Amino acid sequence: MTQRYDRRGVSASKDDVHRAIRNIDKGLFPKAFCKIVPDFIGGDPAFCNVMHADGAGTKSSLAYVYWRETGDLSVWKGIAQDALIMNIDDLACVGATGPILISSTIGRNKRLIPGEVISVLINALNELAERLSGLGINCCLTGGETADVGDLVRTIIVDSTVCCRMRRDRVVDNSRIRGGDIIVGLSSVGQATYESAPNSGMGSNGLTSARHDLFARLVAEKYPESYDSGIPPELAYSGSLLPTSAEEGLEPDAGRAVLSPTRTYAPIIRRMLDTVGRDRIHGMVHCTGGGQTKIMHFVENMRVVKNNLFPVPPLFRIIKEQSGATEKEMYSVFNMGHRMEIYVAPEDAEAIISVSRSFGVDAQAVGYVEASDRNELIIESEKERIVYV
Amino acid sequence: MTQRYDRRGVSASKDDVHRAIRNIDKGLFPKAFCKIVPDFIGGDPAFCNVMHADGAGTKSSLAYVYWRETGDLSVWKGIAQDALIMNIDDLACVGATGPILISSTIGRNKRLIPGEVISVLINALNELAERLSGLGINCCLTGGETADVGDLVRTIIVDSTVCCRMRRDRVVDNSRIRGGDIIVGLSSVGQATYESAPNSGMGSNGLTSARHDLFARLVAEKYPESYDSGIPPELAYSGSLLPTSAEEGLEPDAGRAVLSPTRTYAPIIRRMLDTVGRDRIHGMVHCTGGGQTKIMHFVENMRVVKNNLFPVPPLFRIIKEQSGATEKEMYSVFNMGHRMEIYVAPEDAEAIISVSRSFGVDAQAVGYVEASDRNELIIESEKERIVYV
Repeated sequence: MTQRYDRRGVSASKDDVHRAIRNIDKGLFPKAFCKIVPDFIGGDPAFCNVMHADGAGTKSSLAYVYWRETGDLSVWKGIAQDALIMNIDDLACVGATGPILISSTIGRNKRLIPGEVISVLINALNELAERLSGLGINCCLTGGETADVGDLVRTIIVDSTVCCRMRRDRVVDNSRIRGGDIIVGLSSVGQATYESAPNSGMGSNGLTSARHDLFARLVAEKYPESYDSGIPPELAYSGSLLPTSAEEGLEPDAGRAVLSPTRTYAPIIRRMLDTVGRDRIHGMVHCTGGGQTKIMHFVENMRVVKNNLFPVPPLFRIIKEQSGATEKEMYSVFNMGHRMEIYVAPEDAEAIISVSRSFGVDAQAVGYVEASDRNELIIESEKERIVYV
Repeated sequence: MTQRYDRRGVSASKDDVHRAIRNIDKGLFPKAFCKIVPDFIGGDPAFCNVMHADGAGTKSSLAYVYWRETGDLSVWKGIAQDALIMNIDDLACVGATGPILISSTIGRNKRLIPGEVISVLINALNELAERLSGLGINCCLTGGETADVGDLVRTIIVDSTVCCRMRRDRVVDNSRIRGGDIIVGLSSVGQATYESAPNSGMGSNGLTSARHDLFARLVAEKYPESYDSGIPPELAYSGSLLPTSAEEGLEPDAGRAVLSPTRTYAPIIRRMLDTVGRDRIHGMVHCTGGGQTKIMHFVENMRVVKNNLFPVPPLFRIIKEQSGATEKEMYSVFNMGHRMEIYVAPEDAEAIISVSRSFGVDAQAVGYVEASDRNELIIESEKERIVYV
């Protein structure tokens, strides 16, 4: 799949991007999930600033196809959520739970994306900011830019940027992850108390693979603007489903299962920090690009063992069937069942689990950490034992 | 040209975007050039926050063509400057001259854009942030996102987002623009003391028009990935030049004249605010999308008369010749000679002009404002008197 990934013009590891930024200052907490700088805009040495950018990625291409096919504008609400939550949950990993300033950056092809889509996106961002505030994650929507850039963007790209100012002593920076820690995984499926529909487990990464592996050539023929025609034809929409296909395990249909809006774990993390205590949380990892291997960016000389994972959600099982990817590849692209993991001492695991369950989000000890003389990740999936070095 | 603009899938006025956001809260200073919110992240009622997003637009498509044609990576440094300065100079219009946090959002087609381009972009952003800091505009580069999204982005899109916290009583919000004010224009051409090369006058708006009106069909044939093939063929690269063409007035060649990096006026504005005084500045307008008509978003019941404009820079004269656009159209898309304007009482105009000239940037009184019973803009160009209502 790594090769399939590369040939489709994407990268799970983004090695060349990491090389491109290797000389850029890493900030106050080099191991933190987000770059953290001194309180540049407040001037208080006890504080720091976190500014972070991310977006819905190619999920918006599927939203475009689904909307064109069905007229269902509501998929754009999901894209707004994807673009924002990918940032909010990254911030949560450093303990930044608000107040948060939000800005949106949308680039569209005006020939194909009318104002009504922009209106749904902006209003959904606004509503989500209010909903998050009601859940204890104080958010404020500031400005934003919607640019007409059809010569650059085939359909639409939806990104957001967030900015938070917080006390330095409240930062969770992954530097305290240690041998003996338990990894608590928070399920990516089911329905949280604060959600209005069940989640398929999809976040906003791996969408180039998921879209092309699941959906059929007919999508390419009908909506050539939905993909890069420069990728090898055999890798373009090489699956067998249509976005509106009914498929066991992909409810309500294949398109909407993949478009299931990215869940936020921020309200749960906020509660954990308040009740279990910030100093008890050794680290937090949002399993986005790199999937279950993401943790390996944040530890040194650790063997991370994940030997008690959640059952693989139907969506990821079906992606695997359609793509023929190996277990090893699947776990390095998709979250495979939990999109957030919390690193704590064994005695704190139960408290973390019960906070998450109190929000209707299943949680369990999915593995543990051992000191080692090098970095190693071992995933015991339902089918095999996978070693990443 | 409005029709040409629309058929190319772009819009100078962005009416549908303005409609899409009309119900969104306008912030503390509704007439300000940027949306300003209470000090959400500092909690001090004397302060406020400005977060703002913009980017290089389709200028990056021309950079791509020029780089592919010549191998000259330095054009990407210019794109980094475009993406950042479009924001910095918007911020300057509300008096926000730092400290400023900066984040970048880059979407690329990895098949076409290698890591070395990303490296030039990120390092150029970092260098520019340091250079601005040295010029009194304190900037700090935070995180950023580079996403591989070839199914969305034909080549590369480069955006940035900025965040500033400032005292409310230091905001310049355009609400004090009044009848009798003089409009001081700051030239978009020449070479400022803080610049290393002369500027053609191009900023980062109107690039879809400029590119297609100036450059020839051969570009479409050689680099089909550089534009939206869905636009009418007669509007795609309908000019007669090549990016490497030598052309009188377009130095060092046509491509680099259009790629001339967006000038920042922020160091000049910073000095003006300090020496002339914030309370003497009634308003500031960055003439980006909408060109010389931009001011009309920020006044009510005013007749704005621009009757003493700078000579039209060669670049804009040649775009007009190649496109056959009317004077009225040209002034509503391009800056035509000054990209920043300052609204002040007549007795303060000279002081503003001399600050600008002390930085090597020509400035002059380009017009004035009269109270009226409605909004009206009159531009007396070299050729005709144009009325916008």
